[in-house]
Amino acid sequence: MLKIALCQLPVKADKHENLNQAASMVQEAASAGAQLAVLPEMFNCPYDIHCFRNYAENIPSGETVNHLSALARTHGLFLIGGSIPELVGELLYNTSIVFDPKGEIIAKHRKAHLFDVCVKNGIEFTESQVLSAGNTTTIFQTPWGKFGVEICYDIRFPELTRKMAKEGALLVIVPAAFNMTTGPAHWELLFRSRALDNQIFMLGTSPARNFQASYVAYGHSIAVNPWGQILAQLDEKPGVLIVDLDFTQIEEVREALPVWKQRRENLY
Amino acid sequence: MLKIALCQLPVKADKHENLNQAASMVQEAASAGAQLAVLPEMFNCPYDIHCFRNYAENIPSGETVNHLSALARTHGLFLIGGSIPELVGELLYNTSIVFDPKGEIIAKHRKAHLFDVCVKNGIEFTESQVLSAGNTTTIFQTPWGKFGVEICYDIRFPELTRKMAKEGALLVIVPAAFNMTTGPAHWELLFRSRALDNQIFMLGTSPARNFQASYVAYGHSIAVNPWGQILAQLDEKPGVLIVDLDFTQIEEVREALPVWKQRRENLY
Repeated sequence: MLKIALCQLPVKADKHENLNQAASMVQEAASAGAQLAVLPEMFNCPYDIHCFRNYAENIPSGETVNHLSALARTHGLFLIGGSIPELVGELLYNTSIVFDPKGEIIAKHRKAHLFDVCVKNGIEFTESQVLSAGNTTTIFQTPWGKFGVEICYDIRFPELTRKMAKEGALLVIVPAAFNMTTGPAHWELLFRSRALDNQIFMLGTSPARNFQASYVAYGHSIAVNPWGQILAQLDEKPGVLIVDLDFTQIEEVREALPVWKQRRENLY
Repeated sequence: MLKIALCQLPVKADKHENLNQAASMVQEAASAGAQLAVLPEMFNCPYDIHCFRNYAENIPSGETVNHLSALARTHGLFLIGGSIPELVGELLYNTSIVFDPKGEIIAKHRKAHLFDVCVKNGIEFTESQVLSAGNTTTIFQTPWGKFGVEICYDIRFPELTRKMAKEGALLVIVPAAFNMTTGPAHWELLFRSRALDNQIFMLGTSPARNFQASYVAYGHSIAVNPWGQILAQLDEKPGVLIVDLDFTQIEEVREALPVWKQRRENLY
């Protein structure tokens, strides 16, 4: 059994306020007994292409990394550091950093699919104007097994989650920031279907909704089990969602509905 | 624009009654202007592994094929003949036959993933005790574009629908018979997610629910658009669902949310 915490923090324009909020929510998670905490996408920076460069940091030398490392070490938990704008030379990435309970970086995922959308009467956003795309899938080892990380729009590409599940991931963690167009339409559907198709757990952590922001996040941080059921979900307000994950469910579901071993790779 | 009809007929033990019901529902579909009609999985036979051999027929020489061919020709529509038990030598398949408006067979899909499940306090079924699995994906050409066919449990394997979409299918048609365990849990989720991930239309046709049958079908024949929205859905009772499909939506959705061209095949 793994107790996880999804930290749906209200991202502000002030980076230090964001870091303090993360500290306070991770502390709340630890007090509740969480062994793994997840922050949202771009948790230290407004989700706005005009902000990314100003808030960007090097990894591992930046202040956000140091802050998160200390949080993981202090509370002795795995910390999936949402994502932050990462500066590499002149390039910017949307990057998630994973810390072990000693505060060591054990994985780093750079968003591999950039969010370039233009929905009529809905959301418009073009990450590729300022960001570069990562080129790897990201899995890390824990005492409970292998977990994967992907960022927001990555979840729309089923091959990515599929690949991680094939490599043994029991859980895929998704720092994300869906919006008021795609959230109501697709948030639950994507998390539930990736969980069901791969018979794994899926976690999504969003910023809280803030109608003052240029990009209004949907919220609704979510945990889904391998049967495609929503275990728990927040609403749009700030909050820490604590959920117990029982990984023996994966074997149960894969035995009951053996799609995992019935795949016919030679046909596709 | 294509007007389709999903014929949710109540499958009985009497094969001729089933053929007559199909005739009556296809006539109703044609009267409503449908250009393509879909029957459910195993529409001429109870969905029961002990029945399949007795109801099985050769293709194309069996009476069900002749009956369906005449229906397609008489009404001048494309007819996706749900599925029937097909006899090939000693082997049995769960096979869907597609007729053009002249009554010619233009495609045939043999269920490629056999339904072998055992859910605690839920459904138990083992198709592989009596059926053999097909080994192909199935696409056919129409005046509206390419359409794919898969049968029921096939939909749980995302690679199959993905392959058909990559080969140009704008619509995937699924004669199916989910049950009272998997139907409420996964029916909508699977149709909606295949539609959304591939940005195509998805159609599912089920038998009506019959609590006297050994296998109780869920019903809820469904049509979903490329945004993952349910266009229309029946309840559990017999009925013919008429839906207009506007294929220009595919291009619109793929432009607004360009996941189709943003896939990064080199990563997966």
